[in-house]
Amino acid sequence: MKFCSHCGSADIRLKIPKGDNRERYICSHCNTIHYSNPKVVVGCLPVWEDKVLLGKRSIGPRKGLWNVPAGFMENGETVEEGAKREVFEETNAKVEISGLLTLYSIPRINQVYMHFFGNLENLDFSAGMETSDVQLFSEAEIPWDSIAFSSSEFTLKHYFADRKKGSFTTHSGALLL
Amino acid sequence: MKFCSHCGSADIRLKIPKGDNRERYICSHCNTIHYSNPKVVVGCLPVWEDKVLLGKRSIGPRKGLWNVPAGFMENGETVEEGAKREVFEETNAKVEISGLLTLYSIPRINQVYMHFFGNLENLDFSAGMETSDVQLFSEAEIPWDSIAFSSSEFTLKHYFADRKKGSFTTHSGALLL
Repeated sequence: MKFCSHCGSADIRLKIPKGDNRERYICSHCNTIHYSNPKVVVGCLPVWEDKVLLGKRSIGPRKGLWNVPAGFMENGETVEEGAKREVFEETNAKVEISGLLTLYSIPRINQVYMHFFGNLENLDFSAGMETSDVQLFSEAEIPWDSIAFSSSEFTLKHYFADRKKGSFTTHSGALLL
Repeated sequence: MKFCSHCGSADIRLKIPKGDNRERYICSHCNTIHYSNPKVVVGCLPVWEDKVLLGKRSIGPRKGLWNVPAGFMENGETVEEGAKREVFEETNAKVEISGLLTLYSIPRINQVYMHFFGNLENLDFSAGMETSDVQLFSEAEIPWDSIAFSSSEFTLKHYFADRKKGSFTTHSGALLL
């Protein structure tokens, strides 16, 4: 942040506001405090019988690697609406959400992943704009060496482990670097 | 947003960026796209034997009403670290987190609440800076008519219902207005 988005002043300083306990960008001209907070990435692992649907990324980062359909949550939506929207945008598939499978924090980049799981409504899926391929994988077929992000690996491992147990629960984890 | 925080230009327009599907604030001068996304509120319901700890808000909104200790997640922390930090800031209490109890979206104000639950480490608690009182309540003592936010009501109801069942799970809900 170089300029105040409220008044346009370039006199922005990192200071601790009164009553706060950490530094924020504060405009010395209009006193606006500019907060910065983590972003939420929402997604859903689509399930069909014993298989799950992954998308191959056609854009960076991790272009060419496989991923649980997910993306930044948008204003004006619930977490479930965001997860269903991301599945549709990336794989043109519709899912019915069963529950939250994983919660995964990456504090270094100020992100929180929420991956749901749920059944595909039908087998009508295809690559979306940021995806070059979409495929159903059984557990044995998962390309473990070509998974795009650790959040997706975390989700896939817990999905198959919970399925073996016969009951699903929410798992929380973090990438601490 | 009235000025570009990157270059200071006042020529900010709501437009759909190439490859996107919704309007963003874009600077016509330096082409920076200014994204706005929902914020995460993290908290934890502290438990001691058959009672839970609530804090009475000493600031607006909902000053004087009781709340599950919670607040905005900060950059650089995991969701659990944020929840424990908020409990400590509001009630000077330390908790050991057991799990995520509720996930609660409020799309109208672009917020997602995540309330964990967990045992108090000891009975050392007191009002923090934004709190005027801190008290342990049994289920029968909960001041249902004086709960600050619907997210806290959602959490308290699910906590006591799950406790009766003898097993806790993650519940997702939303305030749709």
